This record gives sequence, C-alpha cells and structure tokens, in this order.
Amino acid sequence: MDDKKINELVNEVLNRIQKSEDEKSTEKKVEKSANKKGGEAKLNLANEVTEFIGTTIGDTIGLVIANLDPKLREMMGIDKKYRSLGIIGARTGAGPQIYAADEAVKASNTEVVKIELPRDTKGGAGHGSLIVFGAEEVSDARRAVQVCLEELDRTFGDVYANEAGHLEFQYTARASKALNKAFGAPEGKAFGISVGAPAAVGVVMADVAVKAATIDVIGFASPADGTSLTNECILFFSGDSGAVRQAVIAAREVGLKLLGSLGDKPESVTKPYI
Amino acid sequence: MDDKKINELVNEVLNRIQKSEDEKSTEKKVEKSANKKGGEAKLNLANEVTEFIGTTIGDTIGLVIANLDPKLREMMGIDKKYRSLGIIGARTGAGPQIYAADEAVKASNTEVVKIELPRDTKGGAGHGSLIVFGAEEVSDARRAVQVCLEELDRTFGDVYANEAGHLEFQYTARASKALNKAFGAPEGKAFGISVGAPAAVGVVMADVAVKAATIDVIGFASPADGTSLTNECILFFSGDSGAVRQAVIAAREVGLKLLGSLGDKPESVTKPYI
Amino acid sequence: MDDKKINELVNEVLNRIQKSEDEKSTEKKVEKSANKKGGEAKLNLANEVTEFIGTTIGDTIGLVIANLDPKLREMMGIDKKYRSLGIIGARTGAGPQIYAADEAVKASNTEVVKIELPRDTKGGAGHGSLIVFGAEEVSDARRAVQVCLEELDRTFGDVYANEAGHLEFQYTARASKALNKAFGAPEGKAFGISVGAPAAVGVVMADVAVKAATIDVIGFASPADGTSLTNECILFFSGDSGAVRQAVIAAREVGLKLLGSLGDKPESVTKPYI
Repeated sequence: MDDKKINELVNEVLNRIQKSEDEKSTEKKVEKSANKKGGEAKLNLANEVTEFIGTTIGDTIGLVIANLDPKLREMMGIDKKYRSLGIIGARTGAGPQIYAADEAVKASNTEVVKIELPRDTKGGAGHGSLIVFGAEEVSDARRAVQVCLEELDRTFGDVYANEAGHLEFQYTARASKALNKAFGAPEGKAFGISVGAPAAVGVVMADVAVKAATIDVIGFASPADGTSLTNECILFFSGDSGAVRQAVIAAREVGLKLLGSLGDKPESVTKPYI
Repeated sequence: MDDKKINELVNEVLNRIQKSEDEKSTEKKVEKSANKKGGEAKLNLANEVTEFIGTTIGDTIGLVIANLDPKLREMMGIDKKYRSLGIIGARTGAGPQIYAADEAVKASNTEVVKIELPRDTKGGAGHGSLIVFGAEEVSDARRAVQVCLEELDRTFGDVYANEAGHLEFQYTARASKALNKAFGAPEGKAFGISVGAPAAVGVVMADVAVKAATIDVIGFASPADGTSLTNECILFFSGDSGAVRQAVIAAREVGLKLLGSLGDKPESVTKPYI
Repeated sequence: MDDKKINELVNEVLNRIQKSEDEKSTEKKVEKSANKKGGEAKLNLANEVTEFIGTTIGDTIGLVIANLDPKLREMMGIDKKYRSLGIIGARTGAGPQIYAADEAVKASNTEVVKIELPRDTKGGAGHGSLIVFGAEEVSDARRAVQVCLEELDRTFGDVYANEAGHLEFQYTARASKALNKAFGAPEGKAFGISVGAPAAVGVVMADVAVKAATIDVIGFASPADGTSLTNECILFFSGDSGAVRQAVIAAREVGLKLLGSLGDKPESVTKPYI
C-alpha cells in the first residue's frame, strides 16, 4: 500500500467536506457557536486535518487528528489542553503496542490519555488495543505515532503463536508513563511481563518467573480479573534489570514448551529481542 | 433450507413432548401449580407452540414463543402482560438488527423488552445480538420478527468489511422505541450511527462526522466504555435529517479510505442504502 | 505428541533454572526471606516441580504446580493450606471442563479454588475455561487433573456444532462441589444445563426444557447477564434425575433442529452420552 497516496486521498476528502461546509449558509454555525460556553476556540476548519501516518503488523494503524472537535473531546474525557491526538489502533496485540507507546512518550512531548483493550486478536485468545496520545502541537502527536509504529517490529519479537494459543514477553530497562498508566509500572525501573494463553499456561509461567529471580510482582491478571475476558494469565513485574530479564527468560523457556505441547512449535511473530 | 419443513419438525417435536407430559402422572403438575402464586394462568400446553420464522444474513434467526413459561419469564425479567415473545438472534451484527427492530416495532403491536449484545461476529471485531419483542398476542410477535428479518437485507447495506475490520453506518429519518432503548435515540427524530473497527478508525470517523454537519451527539462508545469489549468506536447522533445523513456520508468516505489502508477495498455486505 | 517427553523437557528446564538460582549469591535470597512474614515455609526449590500432565480435546491442557510460590498464591487469592495446584485450561469449552472437574473433586482430595471463563472458543460463540484445584499434597492435584482430562471425552459428547453456532447439554445424577461453585448447583442432586448459541436458540431451548419436565430452575444466563459476553443463553436446572434428563433431551431435540436451520446438521464433538 502506498501510504502517501492514502494520505492524499484522506486529505482530499476532508478538504471537500470543508468546502461543502463553507458553502452552506453560515446561520447554523453561528447558532452552533452561540450554544457553546465562551472561551472555546473558534473552529478553524483549515487546521482540521486528519493525517494517516501508516499501518504495520497486527493490523495496527497510526492516525493523527490535528484539531479534535470539542464536543467529541468532551465525550472522550480528554483534557482541553490537548488540541491534537495521536491514535494507535490494532486488531492484534496490546503489550507490543503499549511498550511501543512507552518509547513514544519518552521521545515526544505527549501524554498517553487513553489505553483501551478490546477482546480481539481476530479469533485468537487475546486483546487488541486503542491508544490515544494527547498533544498540544500536532507535530508532537505525529512524532508519537511514528515512533510507536516503528517500535512495533521490535516489540512483536517476543510474541510467539501457534494454532492453540500465544505467548508474549516484554522487557524494558526503564518504564515510563505509558507502562505506568496501563499496568502500574514504577517509572524509571526495569519492567517485564509474561503472558500465556490458554490461561493455564500463563499460571505456570507466572510461577516460574517469580521463582527464577528476585522480582517485585506488580500484578497478576487472569480471564475474569484484569483482562478483557481474554484467555490469558499475565504476570507484571519490576526490579533490577538483570532480575527482570532473568524472570522473562525463564518464563519464556517453559511457556514455549507448554504451548508447543498443544500444537506446532510456537514461532516468533518477528524476531526475539529479549 | 425449507423453512416450512423445519417449522413442521419443530412443532412435531413440541407435540411429542406435550404428549409425553400428558401421559405422565398428573400428581407432579398439581404440586407444581400449587407452588405458584394464584392468578397465574393455568398452563395450556395446546398453545405452547414455538415457531421457527426464518433465517437470514449474519446467521440471524427469527423465532416465536407463543406462550412463554412463567418461570422463565420471571428469570428473564419480562413483564407478565407479554405471553408471547418474538426473538431475533445473530452471530454477526447489532446495528443492522436494532435498526431493523425499530421498523418492526413501528409495524407491530410489540415492545422491545430485551437487547443484549454479545462479543461476537465469529472472530471479527464486533457484536452479535439478541433482541426480544414482547407481545400480548402471538400474531404480533410473529409480525415483528417477520418485519425485522425482512429489513435486514437493507440494514446490512452500509456494513463494509475486509480482512482487517469493518465499518457500519445506519440512518433513519424517524427513530422509534428500539433505537431509543438501545442507544437513547430521541424518538421521532432522524438518528444515525458511525461505527469503525479497529477502534482507531472509528475515532477519526467520529471526529469527521461531528465536523461535517450540525448534529446532536447522543453518545460515543469505545472498547472499554459502551461496547461489549468490541474493537470499535461508535458515534450516535441525532438532528435534522439532512444533517444526520451528511454526517454519515462524510464518516463513510473517510472510513472506507482508512480501513482500505489496512487491507482490501471494504465491500458492502449487501447494497448501500444511505 | 509424546507427553512423557514434554514432561521431561519441562522438568529439565525447571532444573536448570534451579541450578542457576543455586549458583547465584545467596544474599538476595536471604533478603527475600527476611521480607516475608514469619511462618511461611522456607522455599524448598527441590520440590518446586511443575508437571505437565497432558492435553486433550478443546485445546485443553492439564498442569500441576507442586509448590506454588507464596507471592503468586497471595495474588491469586488462594488459601495458604494449598501448597499444590492442579490446573486445567482450555480454549474451547467451559461446561465440559466444569462437569469433568466435578468428577475430579469427587475422586480426589482437592477443592476447586478458581473457575474463570474467558470469552473464547477460537472465534466461536462461547467460553474457554481456567479451572484451578487446590491440594495439600501434590499427588492429589495430579489425580484431580488426570481424572478431569479423562472425563472430557465423555463431557464433550453432547456438544454439537456447525458453522453457525453450537449447542451443549450436560447431565449428572449427583452434582458435587465444582458444579456448586460454578453454577450454584445443589450438591447431591441431579443437575443439567442446556446451552444454545446463537443466544436466540438458547432462549427457545430453555422454554422447551422448563415445559418438558418438573425441574427446579437454578439460573438463566444470557449474553449480558451471567456469561462472559458470549452469544449463548443457558438454562441451569436441578431436580429428580428422570426429570432433569427429560428436560435435557427435549431441549436437545429442538436445539438440533433450530441450529440446523442456520447451517449443516450439528454434529457431536465426540459421542453423545445423555
């Protein structure tokens, strides 16, 4: 797919909508503005450009809204100071996108204002994801989305799947605000997760991880508690970076064997990084 | 499939059950009746006929229970005055079925007593549906189900899908009680919805819809809020009919481009009607 | 798959982890122990063996943790007296696993400490499952998992599926603690369930079951109430064993016709037992 061409098309559509708006009588707009509380910036349609940034693995799409409609912002519960949004959405994966978003907030002047996890993976056992970055400047929103999309090839590296389920492992030496918001990760410390599906596999992996190294267990999620009814058990853990890595590696070794007992050898979606 | 034949078979099964019931000692029945509070109509098995009305797109099935069992009615929280139920169930789709049910309640003496939305679409990103019409007369329940099934070919017209997700648009010039119950639509006014999956696409479509015309935003649903953990964002809006249509059309134009960026050109499930 | 070989591999992995642990300085361990409240048994790594018991239908896996990590036990809310866990996890099916678990608790000195039902079935309309047995002795945990896995061939017998949905029927002459915990079944009495997907089919089956025999209706679950957002309606019922069987058989006869109207003739996953 030619991203540039798609972007041009989207922008053209938006321009045409704007034009047809301009051509309509201005009466309704005046009425519309009058209904709003004072202080809200006058709508500047010229700036209302939606940008298509790109797509990547996991049916992940990256988008930018330069100037979010105030009514919609209110409905979404997003702070007034953020005029621009960066948006990441995916059918498959939540961990990879959240770890990627963590790098994105480190690299841009944005805040993660929304992380929602649908029950998805296209018939698989896990989550999809919707992540929204708030930014005062559209260039920051764009930057966050770009970094996030670029990181996904790496963060899908320790996702393994076969016909019976999947495993996921993530590790960062220094958790930032996206991981804090999503999972309660202590900022600035190493932070890892171990995910097993079906959930029974995840329980054993959690037990192995906790025993393998001296880690701080931050949380444990299961189908009925802390997931979106996925068929996963997830361990969240923090600690010194060697211990976190060691726990991840031990859980991965056992998880691959167990999931492999239910089907083919589970394969990395891209290329292992831990 | 030959609907008439299926109906005959179902009725035959029910008749046989009735016969075997009749043949059993009446002792237990007396006991059963004695346990009930007075005033409940005596069970008249001759009227307890389940009818198969038909099946259609989206694995949708239409059924009628002529004389609902009182215990089950109580468990389902359905008002005593409704002896008969019309039932619509589907693996794929909620919007199409609810808009169709809205026409059904306009055309029959029934009330929509239950709308429940499973997380389904057979591995897709959205909902299935269970819609129950309550009726005092079985002929009304039957009529509601028939109208609902017939409308589905139309209301699936602006559902578009490809391998990465789906879009849905609905529009009515005059919302009635089913849309009011399901989405809080103001009765008697034009009412539209814009649905995008993956959810990120739906956010941008919502922003485009709000900016494209002067509409009253009735609601915004996202994976963690207002959906059954689906990978969708949905905008619900009311207003004058031209504005609602304009908002739908603008959202559709952008949605088709964005979903198309993740896969093949999204195709209408039947034939667009908006 | 060669279960014995897998078990050996898993145990080897665990042994290696233990070895690498032993080789590390003991300082951290002392620190770790010091942080724990007194009275907790000293970690005895030699006993911390995870066992792979086997896999079977429904992507079901059976596992044992001989000596659950105390931190993880606390996170999972499991009573201290249970050092060992038996774990059953499945992508497809909850009823078959729960009825099998009910036989397992009858046959072993264990308690069902957790039953969680993800929304799963690999794109189908129903649940997967995670069932955890608590045991004081690892041999009991092992026994529970073995019995449970062995029972699944039978309890999948009255699960019927086609491309449009599924039906499930279960019957036991004497419900025990797993069915009580999961569904509120009165212990010691006959207990049956009737499940239909899509949910509309399940409503009619429930009505037929209640009318077919004098049963005590224990519960009714639907997509928005009592299921994990599955596209199912489920009736739970108790009573004398003849009546419970009769209700199951009547619901099955109608369900097979209705689901068959949406697709191919629904086929038993294994071999009917009721």
